[in-house]
Amino acid sequence: MKQIGVGILGFGTVGAGVADGLLKNRELMSGRLGVDITLEKIADLDLITDRGVAVDPAILTTDATAVINDPSIQIVVELIGGTGVARELVLKAFEAGKSVVTANKKLLAECGDEIFSTAERCGVDIYFGASVGGGIPIIRVLREGLAGNQISSMHGILNGTCNYILTRMENEHLPFDEVLNDAQQAGYAEAEPSLDVDGFDTVHKAAILASIAYGFHVPLASVPVEGISHLAGVDVQYAAEFGYRIKLLASINRTDDEVEVSVHPTLVPFDHVLASISDVFNAVMVNGDLSDSTLYYGRGAGREPTASTVIGDIGDVARNIVSGSCRFARAIALNNQGKLKMRDPATIESQYYVRLMVADKAGSLGTMTTILGSHGVSILGANQKLPDSDDSGGDYVPVVMLTHRASSAALVSALDEIYQTGVVREPPVKLRMI
Amino acid sequence: MKQIGVGILGFGTVGAGVADGLLKNRELMSGRLGVDITLEKIADLDLITDRGVAVDPAILTTDATAVINDPSIQIVVELIGGTGVARELVLKAFEAGKSVVTANKKLLAECGDEIFSTAERCGVDIYFGASVGGGIPIIRVLREGLAGNQISSMHGILNGTCNYILTRMENEHLPFDEVLNDAQQAGYAEAEPSLDVDGFDTVHKAAILASIAYGFHVPLASVPVEGISHLAGVDVQYAAEFGYRIKLLASINRTDDEVEVSVHPTLVPFDHVLASISDVFNAVMVNGDLSDSTLYYGRGAGREPTASTVIGDIGDVARNIVSGSCRFARAIALNNQGKLKMRDPATIESQYYVRLMVADKAGSLGTMTTILGSHGVSILGANQKLPDSDDSGGDYVPVVMLTHRASSAALVSALDEIYQTGVVREPPVKLRMI
Repeated sequence: MKQIGVGILGFGTVGAGVADGLLKNRELMSGRLGVDITLEKIADLDLITDRGVAVDPAILTTDATAVINDPSIQIVVELIGGTGVARELVLKAFEAGKSVVTANKKLLAECGDEIFSTAERCGVDIYFGASVGGGIPIIRVLREGLAGNQISSMHGILNGTCNYILTRMENEHLPFDEVLNDAQQAGYAEAEPSLDVDGFDTVHKAAILASIAYGFHVPLASVPVEGISHLAGVDVQYAAEFGYRIKLLASINRTDDEVEVSVHPTLVPFDHVLASISDVFNAVMVNGDLSDSTLYYGRGAGREPTASTVIGDIGDVARNIVSGSCRFARAIALNNQGKLKMRDPATIESQYYVRLMVADKAGSLGTMTTILGSHGVSILGANQKLPDSDDSGGDYVPVVMLTHRASSAALVSALDEIYQTGVVREPPVKLRMI
Repeated sequence: MKQIGVGILGFGTVGAGVADGLLKNRELMSGRLGVDITLEKIADLDLITDRGVAVDPAILTTDATAVINDPSIQIVVELIGGTGVARELVLKAFEAGKSVVTANKKLLAECGDEIFSTAERCGVDIYFGASVGGGIPIIRVLREGLAGNQISSMHGILNGTCNYILTRMENEHLPFDEVLNDAQQAGYAEAEPSLDVDGFDTVHKAAILASIAYGFHVPLASVPVEGISHLAGVDVQYAAEFGYRIKLLASINRTDDEVEVSVHPTLVPFDHVLASISDVFNAVMVNGDLSDSTLYYGRGAGREPTASTVIGDIGDVARNIVSGSCRFARAIALNNQGKLKMRDPATIESQYYVRLMVADKAGSLGTMTTILGSHGVSILGANQKLPDSDDSGGDYVPVVMLTHRASSAALVSALDEIYQTGVVREPPVKLRMI
């Protein structure tokens, strides 16, 4: 049986998981794949910390370049993260004729053009399955399983921290700040949580998914993003009363030559499969012209789940090398570059959930509905709520409405105009619906 | 760009879907895969019926052998079904040096040994992604994405007809027969429904999944199977009162050197993702040592979804041929043949739902619990129900119990003994819990 050598750059959480998995399941994988995958070297600046993996100390090194240049290593696994040294080492590996497996979403989303074009020029593979969805093999599915499909839309719950917070906000009727605090103490959220809770992590992943599905580069700056840190607990509860659960969704939709990519807290009906994805789990629903709806669910992060996908990619690259055929240099086939463009967010249509604190006097509701109607926004349903105890004066009452489909621009204009009339006490809250 | 020719055997529903998909998404696929896949010939005995696909009449033939021997065809797609002529033609294609893509679960489950060993001897590929789960790329995920995982268990909803019937039984409080009748009229169930509702279709699929995950041949006769045709509506309702939904589940579990494969109506808690899979949809949950829980959801049947997976396989085989490397001759790597064995169903442990019609007199419940306890079956919870109007005499009342984990053999013995005491009116109903 042919042997393929692997070198790991970055012996952190995921690096340790990959090393552990490669060692303990080596025989299992060789039986399945027909290739014997050997762990040859691991590079990290810290060789002291115990990672809980019994690796031969002789394979540890602080010299990443020695890993890349090791002739026994054909696959370099980049698990350093970020776009600094990770980018340099990946490019160096390509130039040395080594294929690369990475879990680095930032590198892919921000430097994808350079990474893919260099891999293609060097005739090597770049696999990046673990950059989106952790243990869910969604990239593989999009690239291969659904290769025969025109993808009309994708909806993803792509950040476990946000989904954990939203699940607890709903189930325990807690405010965002309190759950975030708990999540930080339990290790489910970072001390600096903005990357997760403000949606930026989700944007990176959404851009990668859209690029793969549609074959053009998605500029991150063109993706509207709204996180969950400003989400009020009361909206989570009101949404539930209407039969909806709020999820931080990446929404990707194609219409003709335009693609929408956006990230918003979004109302999902209870009986939609995405509503059943709770706690730290992730899921992506993909709609294809042949497949119809399919959904992929699993742990979006963590040592072992991420290692599972990295190792799956290593297996593929190993088989590619044995057969002398690299397959993913054209990983993101930019065959629609220049043909597709990003949709102007103002024109994106959706149903909306709107909450307003409305003056409790005759004519307020009439004023609002007239203004909404004049902007083409029609109302599907509305509930007047009991005022909070904070609103004991009773001068204003919360009103929650669900709208029919309307463009983002029309709704924003209508809500601005309503706010300016003074019939509402504060800027209205609006949330998208799936 | 290299061209790879495809020939289809069987121009039925799925065959027409594959032809349609290959024609309309040809350019899309060549952009993604770097191979131009051309539809060269379609063989069927009926060349008259309109399949709603605009194929050049010149590529239609009644001669399957002519397709197999056509030098422009490198991939033969078998969509005839069954183990008669389909088996002969697949073997003939192998001998002619052609790789095969099939959706034929019966062929794989019943003749897998012969099919795989012949493909291996001939040095060609056999892909069969659409044999399980229709449009869900579950076979690919198991073979590749999760290749680095020891699979501890899988639970699948693998038959859309059964899931449709169970969903309606629960939502509309209807008996099995009435929903089956509706389903037949709506085209969701066959006139001869036994293959679906008695669980045999699910057994075929479960055997294929287990064979792939564990690398040994699963003999169909050793798989205990219980369908849904004897399921009482009252059990669906009582289960719901306890917070469970009944699904026809394929359960696959590995413990040391034994593998359980079984098919039973099974209680799944409402907050389990599998409980959210409704109507004709299918799903498979897979637990791996690295990946932890992942789930794959989609349409388990139908022209386009099945075609989606067949075409995904064609794309893979085409790339294998271009790179001169067949990859799945060892499709079901029988590397554990002789090392693993099927678990004796009597020893399988589960929690159980039990319903008994109990004599409404002092001591009945005590008699039952004593007998259950003497067989090592302990009770987690019990509810006494109001008698049906049928039981207006009130001599017997329905009692529903959930048990802690017990072996199938222990529970059966206990229930037999209870029945023989005469404290229950009819043989108790027992259902597994996930």
